[in-house]
Amino acid sequence: MNGIVVRNIRRADPDTIAVLERLGVATVHEAQGRTGLMQPYLRPLWHGARIAGSAVTALCHPGDNWMIHVACEVVKPGDVLVIACSSENANGAFGELLATSVKALGVRGVVIDMGCRDAAEITEMKLPLWSRAISAQGTVKASIGSVNVPVVCAGASVSPGDVVVADDDGVVVVPRKEAAAVAQAGEQRERKEAATRARLQKGELGLDIYGMRPALAEKGLKYVDGPLDD
Amino acid sequence: MNGIVVRNIRRADPDTIAVLERLGVATVHEAQGRTGLMQPYLRPLWHGARIAGSAVTALCHPGDNWMIHVACEVVKPGDVLVIACSSENANGAFGELLATSVKALGVRGVVIDMGCRDAAEITEMKLPLWSRAISAQGTVKASIGSVNVPVVCAGASVSPGDVVVADDDGVVVVPRKEAAAVAQAGEQRERKEAATRARLQKGELGLDIYGMRPALAEKGLKYVDGPLDD
Amino acid sequence: MNGIVVRNIRRADPDTIAVLERLGVATVHEAQGRTGLMQPYLRPLWHGARIAGSAVTALCHPGDNWMIHVACEVVKPGDVLVIACSSENANGAFGELLATSVKALGVRGVVIDMGCRDAAEITEMKLPLWSRAISAQGTVKASIGSVNVPVVCAGASVSPGDVVVADDDGVVVVPRKEAAAVAQAGEQRERKEAATRARLQKGELGLDIYGMRPALAEKGLKYVDGPLDD
Amino acid sequence: MNGIVVRNIRRADPDTIAVLERLGVATVHEAQGRTGLMQPYLRPLWHGARIAGSAVTALCHPGDNWMIHVACEVVKPGDVLVIACSSENANGAFGELLATSVKALGVRGVVIDMGCRDAAEITEMKLPLWSRAISAQGTVKASIGSVNVPVVCAGASVSPGDVVVADDDGVVVVPRKEAAAVAQAGEQRERKEAATRARLQKGELGLDIYGMRPALAEKGLKYVDGPLDD
Amino acid sequence: MNGIVVRNIRRADPDTIAVLERLGVATVHEAQGRTGLMQPYLRPLWHGARIAGSAVTALCHPGDNWMIHVACEVVKPGDVLVIACSSENANGAFGELLATSVKALGVRGVVIDMGCRDAAEITEMKLPLWSRAISAQGTVKASIGSVNVPVVCAGASVSPGDVVVADDDGVVVVPRKEAAAVAQAGEQRERKEAATRARLQKGELGLDIYGMRPALAEKGLKYVDGPLDD
Amino acid sequence: MNGIVVRNIRRADPDTIAVLERLGVATVHEAQGRTGLMQPYLRPLWHGARIAGSAVTALCHPGDNWMIHVACEVVKPGDVLVIACSSENANGAFGELLATSVKALGVRGVVIDMGCRDAAEITEMKLPLWSRAISAQGTVKASIGSVNVPVVCAGASVSPGDVVVADDDGVVVVPRKEAAAVAQAGEQRERKEAATRARLQKGELGLDIYGMRPALAEKGLKYVDGPLDD
Repeated sequence: MNGIVVRNIRRADPDTIAVLERLGVATVHEAQGRTGLMQPYLRPLWHGARIAGSAVTALCHPGDNWMIHVACEVVKPGDVLVIACSSENANGAFGELLATSVKALGVRGVVIDMGCRDAAEITEMKLPLWSRAISAQGTVKASIGSVNVPVVCAGASVSPGDVVVADDDGVVVVPRKEAAAVAQAGEQRERKEAATRARLQKGELGLDIYGMRPALAEKGLKYVDGPLDD
Repeated sequence: MNGIVVRNIRRADPDTIAVLERLGVATVHEAQGRTGLMQPYLRPLWHGARIAGSAVTALCHPGDNWMIHVACEVVKPGDVLVIACSSENANGAFGELLATSVKALGVRGVVIDMGCRDAAEITEMKLPLWSRAISAQGTVKASIGSVNVPVVCAGASVSPGDVVVADDDGVVVVPRKEAAAVAQAGEQRERKEAATRARLQKGELGLDIYGMRPALAEKGLKYVDGPLDD
Repeated sequence: MNGIVVRNIRRADPDTIAVLERLGVATVHEAQGRTGLMQPYLRPLWHGARIAGSAVTALCHPGDNWMIHVACEVVKPGDVLVIACSSENANGAFGELLATSVKALGVRGVVIDMGCRDAAEITEMKLPLWSRAISAQGTVKASIGSVNVPVVCAGASVSPGDVVVADDDGVVVVPRKEAAAVAQAGEQRERKEAATRARLQKGELGLDIYGMRPALAEKGLKYVDGPLDD
Repeated sequence: MNGIVVRNIRRADPDTIAVLERLGVATVHEAQGRTGLMQPYLRPLWHGARIAGSAVTALCHPGDNWMIHVACEVVKPGDVLVIACSSENANGAFGELLATSVKALGVRGVVIDMGCRDAAEITEMKLPLWSRAISAQGTVKASIGSVNVPVVCAGASVSPGDVVVADDDGVVVVPRKEAAAVAQAGEQRERKEAATRARLQKGELGLDIYGMRPALAEKGLKYVDGPLDD
Repeated sequence: MNGIVVRNIRRADPDTIAVLERLGVATVHEAQGRTGLMQPYLRPLWHGARIAGSAVTALCHPGDNWMIHVACEVVKPGDVLVIACSSENANGAFGELLATSVKALGVRGVVIDMGCRDAAEITEMKLPLWSRAISAQGTVKASIGSVNVPVVCAGASVSPGDVVVADDDGVVVVPRKEAAAVAQAGEQRERKEAATRARLQKGELGLDIYGMRPALAEKGLKYVDGPLDD
Repeated sequence: MNGIVVRNIRRADPDTIAVLERLGVATVHEAQGRTGLMQPYLRPLWHGARIAGSAVTALCHPGDNWMIHVACEVVKPGDVLVIACSSENANGAFGELLATSVKALGVRGVVIDMGCRDAAEITEMKLPLWSRAISAQGTVKASIGSVNVPVVCAGASVSPGDVVVADDDGVVVVPRKEAAAVAQAGEQRERKEAATRARLQKGELGLDIYGMRPALAEKGLKYVDGPLDD
């Protein structure tokens, strides 16, 4: 499937998206069984953003950002634009003009497995953006790729309409059909962590809260009083 | 050419330098045909600086910063000190004392393809600095290199007196003799981008502004309505 | 030595630790003969922290953070928790719950040769933390390692009770028995640098302050007036 | 989908697999529109193997090879075992004992996005194997993953039963349902390349064989006689 | 401890060394509890060597190989020369002349966390050598380091006289005082593996030989018959 | 200078080229003052080639090999084709068809700062080739670059007609005008090394042959008898 643009996609439920956004990447990742995380080389351009939205995907080629322009025609307000590349490339495929465009179109954020440029301007615009690099190296518009097909972006499989959650911890993908269940599991986890947090704040040990001592002993962990000679 | 210090160099025109500084790295890089960009692993120590100046070059060796001291004798106010290394090295060759020195000498900024240290202090001094790493690892003064000879710094060729422009997007080199033409081309580009930006802000698509649809069709891009079954 | 927890260790003298903390990484590294620096890929989660403390060490395995929980039982207020891993791994082994725990226990800071997560939350808590990556990828509690045994962390050898100093320049380890001597040498260096700094601020050259010219000449460095033809 | 083993999968047609194996990675990759290639850090343990087979997939965790043992129960002769990992990891998850096992079970080859060990022994056994590293670092059997679920391996999406082709150029994945069409397209490409090769061997230029001159002129390529002054 | 040469060291028992050499890296690494492995970026210059010997250590600085010459005076026949560097560096610190020297002195092999050069010549001489890179970049003799002090080499701690074992799988370090016990444990492991290998060759599954099924079930692994719809 | 093809270049003297080829990379690199070496990530596709020739340069863009076809028109027998790229890229820009072409045209070897593919076939053809990666990922012919302009290839500056020397140690560039002097200096070095080699083979130490002891003592190197307590 190369050279295809799919105009319409099924999007995730907005209420579910709102829950996933509030939960954030780490909790969502745990809630869906520790899957779907993009590789940690994807970093936010600026700190403090936390977003979620339905993925519109674009598959580009190294040094070429043509398909991002094509994708701009099919995004809807609230979407997250996910840009993959057919091979490793850090060229600055996304800059201030594209940022202006996607902001005008209501895009919630951008995840790009290539480079971005105009870092200062995009930061000032407060467009949430995760990229593999900051690089001014320009791109051409010469090779067609695809829009709204399944892609692998930074090591994670993304289908159009999947929910993409991103914050300072990175980017995680939730399959659209599992989004509601993951949101629910995430909220349960959140409640459980709140209780644990309160106990830890009082100085209780994780060893005791989680009841780890028997398992450690069974594995053969040995304690010595020390200090050892030196 | 090793072991040579050239005391005097031809510098670029100050007015041209001022224009290039205002335009910034991405615009300058585009204006000169997408050449001269240093590799994106060079990162600013702190965000928000935008500088340009004539390059004074120093060629060091791994773990050795002797030639930076030598270069300090030949810099003039407004210059950008460009430090290359004969092999990949991240030792902290530039720290707070050298920063104090170059600041006293009026250096506009420092680009170093080695590491820097005293990150907090140099940030507080607001000396603009781009480096490949932050590392406290000390350096010796044992091997001679050269000052004001052509060098390759972070993948870009730099001759003494070339204009170096640097900001949050990275570092670009403009050959001295081409600087005026590049500055002019950059200002044209700037005006053109302003017009494009205004149209994008209203929600017009790049597809239409740039007239991309015929070329995409000719390349064979196909649209399907979707959503596809899943 | 695998599967061992040493409960008690010899710690460094608090006054010595206080001096080393004030001196910071670069000065301490120089004062002990340029040894003991961890590799520069360890980066602070947030800027501006400067800490020192006695090392409590934990040796984990890739994708597994069990031993951090075990280490929490043996830390004392003021300690620095140093977490090594048996092979390269960037999983998010340290997150906000562990941060809550170590903060409650009085830990001065955390150095981890794995990833951390909950970056925004830990930053807000102002827990000083140096890691090799930010990654939400979860970890298991399945394999035992050791606590308070000598480890190699980010390329530096750390024994329990060694003084770990960390700031924006990275992390350096001072052997406990050498800590007092290093602190003293560091203060001497500090005084010497203050004098040098004052001269540099007036525009004197390092070439003259350090008396480098004879050595450069002996090595064969040659000066030409220039500019060279081009 | 974590913690699932799918016992039976649909495999690709053996004749199609045989064609794809003969064609090799580069031709197959081109024949399916330049998609499906795993990242080039996957390298063959020894040179000269060229294989193809239906993928049996295993998803492991860093430092843990348990699921490889589980996968051994569901492989069939001729299959290619594809081992992905939930995060970047180079531990030696596949060694000589597992090699002995999969050889006895008729596995055609192994593609592993982790490390392998017993390099000399596996080379001597002539088991075709592609891995991201050679490392003796041992692994545990502590965390469950999945077998025969879709995985991302070295940047490529692999579903169970897809055809995996591997040789000295790397590894490419062909979706099972597209395998026959790709094989056919590959054979056409092969015939076309044979004709081109014959012309190139006589010294004809690609410029002429492919008729590139008009397109180059249209793009603005300019010829100068030279030599340029220097 | 910088600037020190220790002339005499305690070496390991030759019979123990011989056993460890025969066992090879993977078995020795397992036999000592999966510790002591150098990072896998250290690669043999040529394939097929398997060596062991007492470590003579040298600590060099980036771009400087002086201490290798110093170490040559204190090596004894059968030793393995282990060369660490105070920061990451790939310069070609070891070439054909040094290879000629250490061969004449009876050195069993060389492990260097820097680069080597004269790759063809050293390969022809059949000197076993593991390095982080092949690079012709020359080195100076300007900075003193140490010989026969504890070093960290490629992530592993090495004390003089420790046994270093190296083969196509990499390099592992065995503390001298533990060498005999590790050799014994390795031989036990070898016998056990021989029995396992024989069963695997007959097609028995690791699942059954190691009795893994109950543990997998307890962890919650689920089997489905499949094939799943697609 | 983008979009330019220079048809004719000044080449180096064939006798000088022959000497440089015989000397090899390490000796040539030393003979010209340790300059001009390309970064060590460029590796030979197969071992044992040693070549030299005048550089014909091509500047490509990521994922695009068009300019290699253009360069084929201007190469002459004995030339070395040097292919640079405007940003980091590992796509397989050079494969068996281009290898067939350049072989027919008498090219001595290929140095490419991108990937190559058809590794087995090019190895069998015995075309000497150095590349940054082996990757089957295909390339387009869409963007013009330049031929026979100065380029930076793998960190080294190359002008058309410079002598490129390559062997198992990597690739070094000798400026055309300095080639004769470098060849002469290399032959002197060769003779000097022969004498040193003979002495080393007899077991003499470099310390004595090079007279290093006084300089080491002056730097403060201290000898202790040992063994140290442990």
